[in-house]
Amino acid sequence: MPDTDAVLRHADAALPRAREALFDLLRIPSISARPDHAKDCRRAAEWVRDTLAAMGFQAALHPTPGQPIVVAHHPGPAGYAGPHILFYGHYDVQPVDPLHLWTSPPFEPQLVQGPRGPRYVARGAVDDKGQVMMFLSALRAWNDAGGGIPARITVLIEGEEEVGSVNLEPFLEANQAQLAADLALISDTGMWDVDTPAITTRLRGLVFTEVALRAATRDLHSGLFGGAALNPINAICAALGGLHQADGRVAIPGFYDRVRAVDPAQAAEWHGLRFDEAAFLGDIGLTHPAGERGVPALERLWARPTADINGIWGGYAGPGSKTVIPAEAFAKVSFRLVPEQDPEAVVAGFRAFLAARVPADARVEVAVLSAAPGIEIAADSAAVRTAREVLSAEYGRPALLVGSGGSIPVVSSLRRILGIDSLLMGFGLDDDQVHSPNEKFEERCFHHGTRAHIRLLGRLGA
Amino acid sequence: MPDTDAVLRHADAALPRAREALFDLLRIPSISARPDHAKDCRRAAEWVRDTLAAMGFQAALHPTPGQPIVVAHHPGPAGYAGPHILFYGHYDVQPVDPLHLWTSPPFEPQLVQGPRGPRYVARGAVDDKGQVMMFLSALRAWNDAGGGIPARITVLIEGEEEVGSVNLEPFLEANQAQLAADLALISDTGMWDVDTPAITTRLRGLVFTEVALRAATRDLHSGLFGGAALNPINAICAALGGLHQADGRVAIPGFYDRVRAVDPAQAAEWHGLRFDEAAFLGDIGLTHPAGERGVPALERLWARPTADINGIWGGYAGPGSKTVIPAEAFAKVSFRLVPEQDPEAVVAGFRAFLAARVPADARVEVAVLSAAPGIEIAADSAAVRTAREVLSAEYGRPALLVGSGGSIPVVSSLRRILGIDSLLMGFGLDDDQVHSPNEKFEERCFHHGTRAHIRLLGRLGA
Repeated sequence: MPDTDAVLRHADAALPRAREALFDLLRIPSISARPDHAKDCRRAAEWVRDTLAAMGFQAALHPTPGQPIVVAHHPGPAGYAGPHILFYGHYDVQPVDPLHLWTSPPFEPQLVQGPRGPRYVARGAVDDKGQVMMFLSALRAWNDAGGGIPARITVLIEGEEEVGSVNLEPFLEANQAQLAADLALISDTGMWDVDTPAITTRLRGLVFTEVALRAATRDLHSGLFGGAALNPINAICAALGGLHQADGRVAIPGFYDRVRAVDPAQAAEWHGLRFDEAAFLGDIGLTHPAGERGVPALERLWARPTADINGIWGGYAGPGSKTVIPAEAFAKVSFRLVPEQDPEAVVAGFRAFLAARVPADARVEVAVLSAAPGIEIAADSAAVRTAREVLSAEYGRPALLVGSGGSIPVVSSLRRILGIDSLLMGFGLDDDQVHSPNEKFEERCFHHGTRAHIRLLGRLGA
Repeated sequence: MPDTDAVLRHADAALPRAREALFDLLRIPSISARPDHAKDCRRAAEWVRDTLAAMGFQAALHPTPGQPIVVAHHPGPAGYAGPHILFYGHYDVQPVDPLHLWTSPPFEPQLVQGPRGPRYVARGAVDDKGQVMMFLSALRAWNDAGGGIPARITVLIEGEEEVGSVNLEPFLEANQAQLAADLALISDTGMWDVDTPAITTRLRGLVFTEVALRAATRDLHSGLFGGAALNPINAICAALGGLHQADGRVAIPGFYDRVRAVDPAQAAEWHGLRFDEAAFLGDIGLTHPAGERGVPALERLWARPTADINGIWGGYAGPGSKTVIPAEAFAKVSFRLVPEQDPEAVVAGFRAFLAARVPADARVEVAVLSAAPGIEIAADSAAVRTAREVLSAEYGRPALLVGSGGSIPVVSSLRRILGIDSLLMGFGLDDDQVHSPNEKFEERCFHHGTRAHIRLLGRLGA
């Protein structure tokens, strides 16, 4: 019987060392969207591999057409008969622009005193380096003070989560035997609040597209051609400007065909959480909810699909005037999906929507950069029950079952290819500024998360 | 009585030298929109000043808060009793992006053999350095072979035409006495075709604005906030996407309130030009006219107002995906106006239009970068009659009276502040790629234009 309490005490003492290890990883600018950061992605992968190897894992880098994937195996103690866990995380991070809004350089992690105690500020502080490091710190604590790694574990850390995990599925397909496990464990989600742990059982899917709209063969003078030649910025605005109806619903025909209303019991449970949308929006300087009118906030965030233009560009964007009608205009457009929706049908619907809304001379292309369905995880499984007990023990209050508006496409990939469910136990907070300037992770979240992983690992072999 | 024929013969022989002089000016990258090219603008101004001083003009640079203005005076021959001419042009040029579409560096002028003979390829080849150089070459030919400058002339060459001539009006106001003249002569317009000269008697005005739409206080993750937080790109597309009705008319309430239908006689004259819109559009790879349905092409181009988005930007525009809801989005939006429209009323209407179309949390700002009304010039004036005769003599066929969809705000400034009308005699062609990559000027246009100016100068003192 492993002595979990001794391991927890060791982890408390080792917090400064765990923080330093995280800061080392955060200093590597592993931005997967930027080809010029490929070497940094590789360095981050090597860092993770070496950290696991130092704890006795059989760890290796696996090349892909993009960034390498780290896979590491540990058999656990002799005679281990508990479940084989596959821990998934990612070492890549989002781009950092707009850089001028950061209060410190994004890849020089800072220990800052915040209203809830110390926090870590850096790109990737929470998403996902900080959350990965909680699990690695829990492993290290077991290794140093608990007599070794207490369970059979495979660790899978990829480097392209922020660009749609394009090379992960082929890798899973090609390495099914090596990656076989009983349950996936993923730490890339959030808590309900800083004192209330949560397990995420519902995730939205994501379709991410890039739209190109081309018109004349060259840029034109708006005086000589205005009123005669198609302006592709006018056209892309006219088309995408109709993406939402006045009631906030997505206007693409058929978009909601398969979308079901939220189960009344689930809706009632969420209602009971008394989510304060005014405070949620107030934190970011807003006062009016966007999205579908008349739909409760948590349903809009967790259980309703959305459409968002994530980027747009075309024509002249420099200082002063340029009276140009450009030859082309572009936009990045993404859709958050609920589990019932088929990503391919959403793409087809979007293409048809655009085709019907652009003038005859406009040549429209829609490139699909990623597409993953939303998913739901069974709330009454043994894994979810164990995790609730572990979190309750750590926090002294029950863990909530929540949804997330974000997408973790790997969850559906793992289910489809390896046949395993995922346990989503994460420790981020809503104000962590994920994907934004000044991303941060509260130290108490980091440390409680490490301790919760220690407890969970201790339960597996028991 | 000056010997115009001798001067014309001299100009024929001096064409290579005139071309070299133009190329010298074209090599100066005087992009007024770019603060980092301020020194180049000054160099171009000095080049013009020195060229005029070498012909006996009293020439000087006048500083402004932006680029300097060149003013030069010549009294003409002793006892000159003809009209005092104010020649206006500009030495600044448009930005050159997208640079990768140029077939040669924009500021390394090329002499290229085209289907109509030699042509000059460079930024500013025609707009407006080439057109200014025709007048300077005509002055030089008179100076070298005609016994001197044949008329009383003031030359006014500014350096901010491409950024809305923001400092010109204050300069005109402050220097009315120094700039007093009987007639302005401007060469910044086009011919009907390469064999048919034209005088432009109608110009559209221009209002150029920059729209900023701000929402949350920071960039957001579209998974965590999509469906709850206002997306400013969605909002700017929804607002600007409604700028045009289905019939192509501008949808801003009140936009057409003062716009009159084209005079039937004028419409008939334009109809007689048998403008080939299919060929005009075919040259730029388009097949369907944009703009107001059911309005003849030349009316749409010359006598109807338009709205165009000249630039748009916001969110992520790099490679791959970024699931961001940005804090802000921007657009450059301009309006071509007919003479009856009041630029201030158009701006007010646009502001009200946007305010009515954005969600409650959106903070919209509309900055007006320039605003000038459209104008009409009397077709039966002595100046227009003289110019028609000169052009008919040079080309062996009558000169047409046409409109232009472009804007030359200085024409209204000169009328309002100095009380003088303008004669618009220009030699550009529709396919000169003004403001676009690979801008060019046909050598035969350049040379005929020089000769037409020689003839016009010869008529003034007669």
